[in-house]
Amino acid sequence: MTNQRGLLIVLSGPSGVGKGTVRAAIFNEKDVDYVYSVSATTRNMREGEVDGKDYYFVSHEEFEQLIEDDQLLEYAEYVGNYYGTPLNKINETLEAGYDVFLEIEVQGALKVRERMPEGIFIFLAPPNLSELEDRIVNRGTDSHGVIMERMQKAVEEIEMMQHYDYVVVNDEVPNAVKKVNAIIESEHLKVDRVVDKIQAQIHEYFQEGA
Amino acid sequence: MTNQRGLLIVLSGPSGVGKGTVRAAIFNEKDVDYVYSVSATTRNMREGEVDGKDYYFVSHEEFEQLIEDDQLLEYAEYVGNYYGTPLNKINETLEAGYDVFLEIEVQGALKVRERMPEGIFIFLAPPNLSELEDRIVNRGTDSHGVIMERMQKAVEEIEMMQHYDYVVVNDEVPNAVKKVNAIIESEHLKVDRVVDKIQAQIHEYFQEGA
Repeated sequence: MTNQRGLLIVLSGPSGVGKGTVRAAIFNEKDVDYVYSVSATTRNMREGEVDGKDYYFVSHEEFEQLIEDDQLLEYAEYVGNYYGTPLNKINETLEAGYDVFLEIEVQGALKVRERMPEGIFIFLAPPNLSELEDRIVNRGTDSHGVIMERMQKAVEEIEMMQHYDYVVVNDEVPNAVKKVNAIIESEHLKVDRVVDKIQAQIHEYFQEGA
Repeated sequence: MTNQRGLLIVLSGPSGVGKGTVRAAIFNEKDVDYVYSVSATTRNMREGEVDGKDYYFVSHEEFEQLIEDDQLLEYAEYVGNYYGTPLNKINETLEAGYDVFLEIEVQGALKVRERMPEGIFIFLAPPNLSELEDRIVNRGTDSHGVIMERMQKAVEEIEMMQHYDYVVVNDEVPNAVKKVNAIIESEHLKVDRVVDKIQAQIHEYFQEGA
């Protein structure tokens, strides 16, 4: 008997929207059926971090080899370090019939969409822009100009939502978690994902009856 | 401010699968957000039934007028009586922003699909065909031939599932209810249903900020 291929679930959204918090809340639930996709990075391991759990910690050379071998679903450079999503592990997990959960920036998510368009792309949106502005303002002592620049970038990212499948407004974390879970449950119930199994049952029934 | 149009939700499946039980369980929950679409019929009102709640009880002439005026989403004749789904009420409810819930036979559902393809069509499937056979056998004292005929019809109906959007296996009623609710919640989160509202928010934010 073959397992049905798992779903690739991509949770993304503008910075400051609370992606990490929602993802952590989902993985803190009991009976989590999703496998979290661990990123690779060249940055140093911090205290308390575990290799293979928080990140795969690799050298600069190893990372560039992964790029060259086309082994990354997407990657980006940030403050002199690489961050990327290893492809091998994702495919293995999907093939084994498990859903893979990716939490990722908007630019990365759009690259994943190109590469694995069959994924389920969920855009986490702020309840409203004023609240996002408050969060950005409260983060530091940036000038009005810097804040407006960040808001402009957030708005550009929000406009990317049209490339996603679903939008979840992060008004309250438990609400957002419930909605993400409903999306994944419902995606598994789509006809195309079920029809082969039921056709096989019908065939079996009439074979046995004959 | 305009309300977003509600969703038409169609729950259907072969006879004996338990559509009525699942529908009743959904409408017995607290905080039901869906409006049940009441059918019209020409059959006599039974004791305890309420006109406008269980059915709209109409005369044969009234029903045929509804057919002539194209006021029915679908209709069928069964044991000398008409049964049908009035269109006006459904459109009013959807326009007011409420979801309309329809529980209906497979043939009727396929007619609704033609007429309102934007509806969410959920096929309720038996856990397996042997169990469906048990239910059909336990209903009466039919001959092997009659039972096989009914099973053949059920299988034909199950093959119609490809015209639906989702398949929910009715293994346990509470599971099926949870899945139907997840489907409806997730459909409301689809990008196309949310994008206009968020674009308007962005516009508003920059108007205020300017």
